[in-house]
Amino acid sequence: MTKFISQRNIRFMIKEVFDVKSLTNHDYYSKHNEKMFDMVIDEALKLAVKLMYPVLEEMDRKYPVLENGEVKVHKSVKKIMKEFGKGGWIASAFSEEHGGEQLPIIIRGVASFIFVASNYSAWAFTELSAGAAELITSFGSQELIDTYVPKMLDGKWQGTMALTEPQAGSSLSDITTIAVPDKNSRFKIKGVKIFISAGDHDGVENIIHLMLAKIENAPPGAKGISLFVVPKKRIDDQGKLILNDITTTSVYHKLGYRGTPAVEISMGEKDDCYGWLVGEENRGLIQMFQMMNEARIGVGLASCGIASAAYLAALEYTENRPQGRPVTLKDPLTKQIPIIEHADVKRMLLFQKSIVEGSLSLILQCCMYADLKKVSAGDEKEKYALLLDLLTPVAKAFPSEYGISSTSAAIQCFGGYGYCEDFPVEQYFRDVRIQAIHEGTTGIQGMDLLGRKILLKDGKAGLLFIEEVKKSIRVAREIGELEFFADQLENAMKQLEKVVDFLFNVFGEKGVDTYLSDASLFLEFYSLIVISWQWLIQGTTAKKALSENCSKKDTNFYNGKLFTINYFFRYELVKTYRLATRLMDGDDLTINMKTEYFKD
Amino acid sequence: MTKFISQRNIRFMIKEVFDVKSLTNHDYYSKHNEKMFDMVIDEALKLAVKLMYPVLEEMDRKYPVLENGEVKVHKSVKKIMKEFGKGGWIASAFSEEHGGEQLPIIIRGVASFIFVASNYSAWAFTELSAGAAELITSFGSQELIDTYVPKMLDGKWQGTMALTEPQAGSSLSDITTIAVPDKNSRFKIKGVKIFISAGDHDGVENIIHLMLAKIENAPPGAKGISLFVVPKKRIDDQGKLILNDITTTSVYHKLGYRGTPAVEISMGEKDDCYGWLVGEENRGLIQMFQMMNEARIGVGLASCGIASAAYLAALEYTENRPQGRPVTLKDPLTKQIPIIEHADVKRMLLFQKSIVEGSLSLILQCCMYADLKKVSAGDEKEKYALLLDLLTPVAKAFPSEYGISSTSAAIQCFGGYGYCEDFPVEQYFRDVRIQAIHEGTTGIQGMDLLGRKILLKDGKAGLLFIEEVKKSIRVAREIGELEFFADQLENAMKQLEKVVDFLFNVFGEKGVDTYLSDASLFLEFYSLIVISWQWLIQGTTAKKALSENCSKKDTNFYNGKLFTINYFFRYELVKTYRLATRLMDGDDLTINMKTEYFKD
Repeated sequence: MTKFISQRNIRFMIKEVFDVKSLTNHDYYSKHNEKMFDMVIDEALKLAVKLMYPVLEEMDRKYPVLENGEVKVHKSVKKIMKEFGKGGWIASAFSEEHGGEQLPIIIRGVASFIFVASNYSAWAFTELSAGAAELITSFGSQELIDTYVPKMLDGKWQGTMALTEPQAGSSLSDITTIAVPDKNSRFKIKGVKIFISAGDHDGVENIIHLMLAKIENAPPGAKGISLFVVPKKRIDDQGKLILNDITTTSVYHKLGYRGTPAVEISMGEKDDCYGWLVGEENRGLIQMFQMMNEARIGVGLASCGIASAAYLAALEYTENRPQGRPVTLKDPLTKQIPIIEHADVKRMLLFQKSIVEGSLSLILQCCMYADLKKVSAGDEKEKYALLLDLLTPVAKAFPSEYGISSTSAAIQCFGGYGYCEDFPVEQYFRDVRIQAIHEGTTGIQGMDLLGRKILLKDGKAGLLFIEEVKKSIRVAREIGELEFFADQLENAMKQLEKVVDFLFNVFGEKGVDTYLSDASLFLEFYSLIVISWQWLIQGTTAKKALSENCSKKDTNFYNGKLFTINYFFRYELVKTYRLATRLMDGDDLTINMKTEYFKD
Repeated sequence: MTKFISQRNIRFMIKEVFDVKSLTNHDYYSKHNEKMFDMVIDEALKLAVKLMYPVLEEMDRKYPVLENGEVKVHKSVKKIMKEFGKGGWIASAFSEEHGGEQLPIIIRGVASFIFVASNYSAWAFTELSAGAAELITSFGSQELIDTYVPKMLDGKWQGTMALTEPQAGSSLSDITTIAVPDKNSRFKIKGVKIFISAGDHDGVENIIHLMLAKIENAPPGAKGISLFVVPKKRIDDQGKLILNDITTTSVYHKLGYRGTPAVEISMGEKDDCYGWLVGEENRGLIQMFQMMNEARIGVGLASCGIASAAYLAALEYTENRPQGRPVTLKDPLTKQIPIIEHADVKRMLLFQKSIVEGSLSLILQCCMYADLKKVSAGDEKEKYALLLDLLTPVAKAFPSEYGISSTSAAIQCFGGYGYCEDFPVEQYFRDVRIQAIHEGTTGIQGMDLLGRKILLKDGKAGLLFIEEVKKSIRVAREIGELEFFADQLENAMKQLEKVVDFLFNVFGEKGVDTYLSDASLFLEFYSLIVISWQWLIQGTTAKKALSENCSKKDTNFYNGKLFTINYFFRYELVKTYRLATRLMDGDDLTINMKTEYFKD
């Protein structure tokens, strides 16, 4: 079987780097133990191997089509939704009160990583349902919860996020879908939504849209947006499911992520579409952001999973493909060597390994913060909440942007074969490209980090992050032989301080537009430091383990970790110099460039 | 009509930057004049608009299939080959003696740029024929020339390059296709070739493979490779075309570049396949490299053309798509602004513009060197030959690698729509991805630059390049207001000197393996300097023009150039710091990393 994740690395992450079993000391997670976590992960892998990976390619080639007003998806979607419902995977992190397993978010994260690496499109259906159901349980009335959540967690009904409209892509304050009060918390809905993932398909009995709309006469902009449940089929007075006047007007044909339909829907063409308010009026955007924050971590995870599958495919290929000889041994009568033995190929593999395992580490770190936030209170709770908030745009953007280069490097390792459909890497390259776009483009993540997150509570989140990094540096220095990395990261942190000071001055002198103009670069700059920090943590763990007695296999594994941190610091972290130079050069060319200068 | 190239920029390049009409002072080009060049370019644009761009999408969607042993391509291929033959486009740069137009290579380059930007797959058929025909005219006997070349230049017969074999991808010395002497210069051929672009199709009457094979008992390795013409149909004693025992065994399904079939062929299954030796025995690889050198410039040009089309599509979209508001004006009741007005979008457009126009400039510079080499003699000739040799791997690799990021940025400008087939950018992203692989991967280009080109004739090529750059810096300083760029480029040149010194020491102390281990990084480092040099030339030209009286339209255009050089130096050239840091850090981790460390 082709490998799409490294089990050894997962074990390393949850047992050696993050002490996940310590979570069971907290009441909320006290019913679990380490053995159960292992079982969950094993089961996830079995499901991925049996059900998801085998249809990876077919779901891409036989993509969804709109026939007679309904979207037909690959037949395996029905089976997957069913199995995910039955196995409790959709509900896994839900509280027992809401029918869930109350599994730590980090364990759920590992399971998701396995699923997504095996088949991103297939996983997306289940994840969208989980997110939508969580929104209802968080803000909806008991009636809404009882009506919708059990069926969604069961895999019978599909949940979606219906935000985007033709005239309002990233600019949600410009949505025009309208909700007119009908009776109780019921509203008549009219409007058009685009790019709704899993927004219609025949793999489930019903589709439940968590939809943003504006109540008639609501205040303009973001402050007048409310959240609704708008089902494809609503329940009539007799308790029967009847159509709710939602028409699927088209299915997009996409570069990748083709197994999951993205659809355009039109609501209320016959004036017979109803939605139910979730939570308070005009609080829709704030509520939706709960789901979107988790969804952003999910996007990072997805990128990371896809890049993992591509990396491991490239690793397998380069180990087995003989081609060429060492530069110093050109004798054509000698045997060709596997291409992994060429330094440039090793470099490309190290790049991929550093991106995949560095990103996974950050994402699991975020999950851990989310778990700790859940089980703690007071200042502790605030600390974890702030760290999670701060790192969310990084966890979304870094894996999705570097995922493009990483899967591209996987193609390069294959040479011409990588460009062909015979191997899955070309699909991974296509699948990963959506990640830098959906749930907020990279540009928007940059604005979130620089414009909101590092300013949050007078910069408290940023300071907490600095403390975390300092702590990791201290621990690394205690181990010895990691000074180089400790020093480099320390220097980068000083550089960060300088850049932030510089930008705050820009803010004061030139205003917020200029301050934010290179937010994308700042995001990359910040991300490289964040990922280096995660690599330092991994390097410290590996070094510690190596100093103890360990098997030959483990020695190889830990040496791999140490070469990869070395790679990341020497080839990637150094990019911060270029970014800092630009961020502080003071020439506001992207502000001053005029549209007409592009014309000819 | 959607724009895929900028006519104004082409005019700028050939009239203002490169004084192309000066070529007509040389005997070889004396029959031409500037007006004729303009006409050629106009005609190329008409053909591209009328014949090629309209089928861009369809050739991708209705890709070639293998039916009953023959490859069926899109019906427009036949028409395009015919028109290209009739219009003299395939033969345009051939000498009059060989039935060509004797057009300067740089004008042919501009025409190719237009074609490739309109439809890369369509252009590839014609370009492959031109390259193959040129090989025959350069090294073949008069009989071979008479038999094959006129039909190939006419568009009736397709030329190919048949190099790659299953067991020998980039390692050509390992090919095993065998040629057994038959009579005269005729040989019996047996073997398998893969990834042959346009290697079989029904858009022409015959396919002429320029094929590498080993003559029975030839020396092992590269020194035993010969070049053959192996036609799909050979001419029998009665002068009739009969099948030559070549079987098309499969057509690859590819990520992009789908309009052109890449096929696997098997020769001599019935022991009835014949080939004719081109030039001398065992000189095949050296001869083939003539075609491959030109083909490498062609790959750069292709990348650049595809990126141009993607950039201009993104420009048009961002000018017309309203979304969001300035950061300082969040009032939802105000009108949304076109997304081009957001600084981050301008940054992405400047990035694309800098890559497209910087790469085009380098490629035309190479074409100019090729022209000057053709018309000069002695030391002059050697100078241009060396500069061309030196810059060829850069002209191949930089546009193809940065073309991936550039087309990816175009997708990003479109947001979700960029990921959909409704717009052409997702196709451009797929089409461009092959360029870093075929005609030698980027890794191989890096080895060529660092391992051969900068060492050529005791480093003479490198010194000539330094002189060229110094000259451009001098001219820039004379204009004034370009000091910043002159200084930056000068600093980068000093950095280059340091890096080269360092690497030469590595060569002496640690050997060639270590010396070459980061050749890909060196290539990027060198390329950034080369492209900055080209931008300095463009900036100087624009600045000079601005100081004279010019129209408002021209003022905008030249200002666009000045903002783009500013962009390139501040955002891209600064990457050299990171690359130099790594290139000189002395830790040979990709040499020392062991294969087993990747395992778990």
